Amino acid sequence: MDLKAQLDTAAADRELFDLLRIPSVSSDSTRKADMARTAEFLRAKLDSLGFTARVEATPGHPVVYAERLQASGQPTVLIYGHYDVQPEAPLEEWVTPPFEPTVRDGRVYARGATDDKGQAYAHVKGVELLLAQGELPVNVKFLLEGEEEIGSPSLEGYLREKAEQLKCDVIVISDGSRFAPDVPTVTYGLRGIAYVEVHVQGANRDLHSGAYGGAAPNPINALATIIARLKDDQGRITIPGFYDGVQELTEQERQMWAALPHSDQEFAESIGVSALPGEAGYSTLERLWARPTLDVNGIWGGFQGEGSKTVIAAKAGAKISMRLVPGQDPARITRLIQEYIPQIAPEGVTAEVIDLHGGQPVAMDLDSPYIAAADRALQKVFGKPAAFARTGGSIPIVAAFREILDAPVLLVDMGLNEDAPHSPNESFALEDYHRGILTSAYLLQELAK
Amino acid sequence: MDLKAQLDTAAADRELFDLLRIPSVSSDSTRKADMARTAEFLRAKLDSLGFTARVEATPGHPVVYAERLQASGQPTVLIYGHYDVQPEAPLEEWVTPPFEPTVRDGRVYARGATDDKGQAYAHVKGVELLLAQGELPVNVKFLLEGEEEIGSPSLEGYLREKAEQLKCDVIVISDGSRFAPDVPTVTYGLRGIAYVEVHVQGANRDLHSGAYGGAAPNPINALATIIARLKDDQGRITIPGFYDGVQELTEQERQMWAALPHSDQEFAESIGVSALPGEAGYSTLERLWARPTLDVNGIWGGFQGEGSKTVIAAKAGAKISMRLVPGQDPARITRLIQEYIPQIAPEGVTAEVIDLHGGQPVAMDLDSPYIAAADRALQKVFGKPAAFARTGGSIPIVAAFREILDAPVLLVDMGLNEDAPHSPNESFALEDYHRGILTSAYLLQELAK
Repeated sequence: MDLKAQLDTAAADRELFDLLRIPSVSSDSTRKADMARTAEFLRAKLDSLGFTARVEATPGHPVVYAERLQASGQPTVLIYGHYDVQPEAPLEEWVTPPFEPTVRDGRVYARGATDDKGQAYAHVKGVELLLAQGELPVNVKFLLEGEEEIGSPSLEGYLREKAEQLKCDVIVISDGSRFAPDVPTVTYGLRGIAYVEVHVQGANRDLHSGAYGGAAPNPINALATIIARLKDDQGRITIPGFYDGVQELTEQERQMWAALPHSDQEFAESIGVSALPGEAGYSTLERLWARPTLDVNGIWGGFQGEGSKTVIAAKAGAKISMRLVPGQDPARITRLIQEYIPQIAPEGVTAEVIDLHGGQPVAMDLDSPYIAAADRALQKVFGKPAAFARTGGSIPIVAAFREILDAPVLLVDMGLNEDAPHSPNESFALEDYHRGILTSAYLLQELAK
Repeated sequence: MDLKAQLDTAAADRELFDLLRIPSVSSDSTRKADMARTAEFLRAKLDSLGFTARVEATPGHPVVYAERLQASGQPTVLIYGHYDVQPEAPLEEWVTPPFEPTVRDGRVYARGATDDKGQAYAHVKGVELLLAQGELPVNVKFLLEGEEEIGSPSLEGYLREKAEQLKCDVIVISDGSRFAPDVPTVTYGLRGIAYVEVHVQGANRDLHSGAYGGAAPNPINALATIIARLKDDQGRITIPGFYDGVQELTEQERQMWAALPHSDQEFAESIGVSALPGEAGYSTLERLWARPTLDVNGIWGGFQGEGSKTVIAAKAGAKISMRLVPGQDPARITRLIQEYIPQIAPEGVTAEVIDLHGGQPVAMDLDSPYIAAADRALQKVFGKPAAFARTGGSIPIVAAFREILDAPVLLVDMGLNEDAPHSPNESFALEDYHRGILTSAYLLQELAK
């Protein structure tokens, strides 16, 4: 029977709204009971669908784990989502209260609507839709955590401890945005990151710029020189060995991305700039998704107050992060910049580079049968082929899944940037929610052998 | 009669200690009465020496003005000093209380001992020494202000208002340090300054460095590039026209300074650095005293907290000052950098340069008869010729004197760096105080025709 015709959207909406009413703000210690209530809501729902479902303790907020393994000989699909939400502040900017879901113009407005209760619950409802027709075509496990918005501090430990229980063939995550409203999207790559802090030391104390200027080394000028030397005039990063092993874009990818609805001018206008500088020889999307970067995220030194102070500071510092692409290893890149910066530091200062954190880049093989399955599922829902995009950001949990569970991760984003996750008036188009439910159901069918 | 033999050092010390006991901290509004008491102390003393002396009101702390114009046909010498002192904090670092003058190892320890009560009062005692022998050989005016340590906010207005009363042939200031303990010093040049603030704007809001890194302009990287481009690899400033008109060092100056007791190694060690980078082709003293500089005094942008934040900041800024030498005009230099920085700003950002303040460089002609008079006076006291030095700093009041009173300024420094002005345990060697009194008396004699 046609899944679309089977979907009771009124019931699906009602249940989601009930879930959205619980203020499961993971960063708010006064809402621990709400967190527990949300976990129990999901456990009970999955239990009612015939899943073995339980709330599992972690050092932080609990995980909802559920499994239904009745499809003998079929792949096992692990669906990840999170039931915690961002804080609602600033409350005064919300048109309607963040925990009273309200529908306007076909969108439900509530904290967590798109991130990630709406997208996670779409999978629950997708499973329910399939079960209404009989047994699930694949084995399904749910892992719904309660700490994503505070950096998933317990997740890695949980994955390691429960690795056997969580064993699967593929992991499905829906916790992001499609490329554009009319573009069903499979995200098959994420950039990694290497994040360091640079400390430059000049004299042993702040000096008077009149008495010492012209002879004393200036650590701020030196830091600026170091930063400027990290890129050449083509926008390429000068750290020796930095590009070693970088996976080049295939001709297929370049053509695919060139065909996406993207306008450099609109992109520049959307952030209010006159140009989009970057590495020569690559388009904007290529630079955002498939090329490594180096950005200074913060800088400080000397006098920052109002007016003027004639000081040569003793020290200056900066935070520098590099987005990495498949083929690059964060630990190696960190080591390279740690070796390079002292070499390019101007005379008279010392420079030290401290490792703050790193995350592996991720890319799924475009020829993977999972990608093809997602493509077919999305075509059934949207009536057009999916776009295969990457994203410039890093999702640390994806790297953790890949490493610990050793399974590919399929990112099937149901939301849109205009849903405003993390902002006041977060929303989720009910049409996208319903399409998400269908996508989930079709995807599980397509993943069956 | 021999002036040295005439000097009653015990009385001179006792009077100075009385002056040092009054806590005339100009920045401390609770000490207004102490400020008035100090002014009255000096007025009464000068009155007792037969000067027409008065305390003159300003919008801030009062000026002590005194004159004795009995040397008909002789030059008029205006002696400037200041009776206010720096705050005493941090009090716990003082070995003995800052306003209880205490002698240890031939030094009097007290706030203001060298800066500037000791040096200013040496001139009062120098005049007294001469008067004990008869009439003064020149006409003498005293201008002792009470706001030097807070930037002399009332001085310029006072000078303009009283320009007629203050008319003179030469201005003598003793408010600094000699080049070295055994080196009597005449300081004949000061650098000027042009101080600006640079604002660099990228996008219209902070951006996520994952989602935008590689395409969005980064104002911190751009600011670093701008700063790096302001100097070439020879340490020369690249602003077009910057060096136009710069007075080159004479061969006499280069030789004179090369003969001064200076060690690059000791200088570098004193500030804890391994090298003294700067403009190629000039010695350290030449770079400090006679060459313009460009130093970043402060920089800021993006995330400065602990840990990491993956942000591309919307804006970044820096404070940049340039020390100027004779031949350069602060207003012109400011205009040049205001034109240049937007030209060298990388694509995608806008850069704006705001004028914060400027000060004229000053140099006295080495052939001036006033310089020669100071040299002869110092020879009588120290038994050796004076060194002719410049200083790297800027003394805004000197430029104001030159401009408004249109008279040359003679800087006869009596102190030493080791006196620690502005620091806890400020002191003044009593020998230097006594030499200062004699220097003042001999100088007035030498300035007579």
